[in-house]
Amino acid sequence: MHKKVAVILSGCGVYDGAEIHESVITLLRLSQRGAVVQCFAPNIVQHHVLNHLTGTEMPESRNVLVESARIARGEIKDIREARVEDFDALIVPGGFGAAKNLSNFAFAGDQCEVQPDVLALAKAFAAAHKPVGLLCIAPAIAERIYGPGVECTIGNDAETAAALTRMGAKHIDCAVDGIVEDVHHKLVTTPAYMLAQSIAEAASGINKLVDRVLELA
Amino acid sequence: MHKKVAVILSGCGVYDGAEIHESVITLLRLSQRGAVVQCFAPNIVQHHVLNHLTGTEMPESRNVLVESARIARGEIKDIREARVEDFDALIVPGGFGAAKNLSNFAFAGDQCEVQPDVLALAKAFAAAHKPVGLLCIAPAIAERIYGPGVECTIGNDAETAAALTRMGAKHIDCAVDGIVEDVHHKLVTTPAYMLAQSIAEAASGINKLVDRVLELA
Repeated sequence: MHKKVAVILSGCGVYDGAEIHESVITLLRLSQRGAVVQCFAPNIVQHHVLNHLTGTEMPESRNVLVESARIARGEIKDIREARVEDFDALIVPGGFGAAKNLSNFAFAGDQCEVQPDVLALAKAFAAAHKPVGLLCIAPAIAERIYGPGVECTIGNDAETAAALTRMGAKHIDCAVDGIVEDVHHKLVTTPAYMLAQSIAEAASGINKLVDRVLELA
Repeated sequence: MHKKVAVILSGCGVYDGAEIHESVITLLRLSQRGAVVQCFAPNIVQHHVLNHLTGTEMPESRNVLVESARIARGEIKDIREARVEDFDALIVPGGFGAAKNLSNFAFAGDQCEVQPDVLALAKAFAAAHKPVGLLCIAPAIAERIYGPGVECTIGNDAETAAALTRMGAKHIDCAVDGIVEDVHHKLVTTPAYMLAQSIAEAASGINKLVDRVLELA
């Protein structure tokens, strides 16, 4: 009876990896709802490492899977080991890691490409008609997964929304405590820290997303 | 009317820094209860850096304040800037960082010393009779703050409890969803991941601790 959910992390820290609050709130809500979770991350080098105190780039190299393991307390696997048939749903938290490591949206905008292993897994969930939840900036890859016309939200940032629209997605403005659901594709999105002014605000939308994804699973 | 709470972080990752889930759950509950939070960390080099995927030591150096900034989304200050008069309460999440960076309990056991800036701030809260919450392994420093006889819990691990007892603390066994309160000192402790088998279990006790600390503040 326990729903099985795969969570894709993209590092550990909002500016160069997975947004930590979004990731932990997702894991907390899933646990509170009795879901069984397995975290995954691509075994690749981070795009870069940013000092989160100063915002400046650090002269070092970190691995996305290794750093994501910090959020997962070591309980994480290479995304290449993920099999869609083992799970009922997929959730991807945000943070710049989604736009720098899982894809290159932060640099290429509407010309972005998705990391091949991430894209293959997400497409497999879509093909199996299993629900997917994308948080914050992660919906930037929605069109690459589902194709033109997919409905999603990144909140109400005009420039980012315009980039998604140019890619072919249908962007729908959404409040921080709301979710947007593409019923046809079983895709659920929420703005989280694209809009949240506090961690409690971020949780308000993320909790709704997790609950809806589990309902659809 | 908003209670002001200082939170001391000790890095970013359970094995060499602050336990991420405990830290985020603390910040979430504080935010949901309307508290105003400021994170602090000592501006020192981490004891070491562990690969959280493999558990092995990595040949690099990281700074506790800089890595803690990942959990705080950059909103963090050097602990030397913390003034007890600006806050109503103090909370310290766990993780090995509390026993490797904030103190050396992980290596010295009952002979441990607390990092001087951390000890000075915690003692200032104690002297001002302002409530303090210590999670997980962080109560290992309770005796150094309050002196012999202070009541606290790290759950029910016999070896760790014995070390606290040798230091002079009074250890009280506690379930994962419980808290122990030293009424005289206004110290609240909870086992969190010393016992938790899931993030939801960890949250059950942490939420009670945060609520009680805010009541006492």
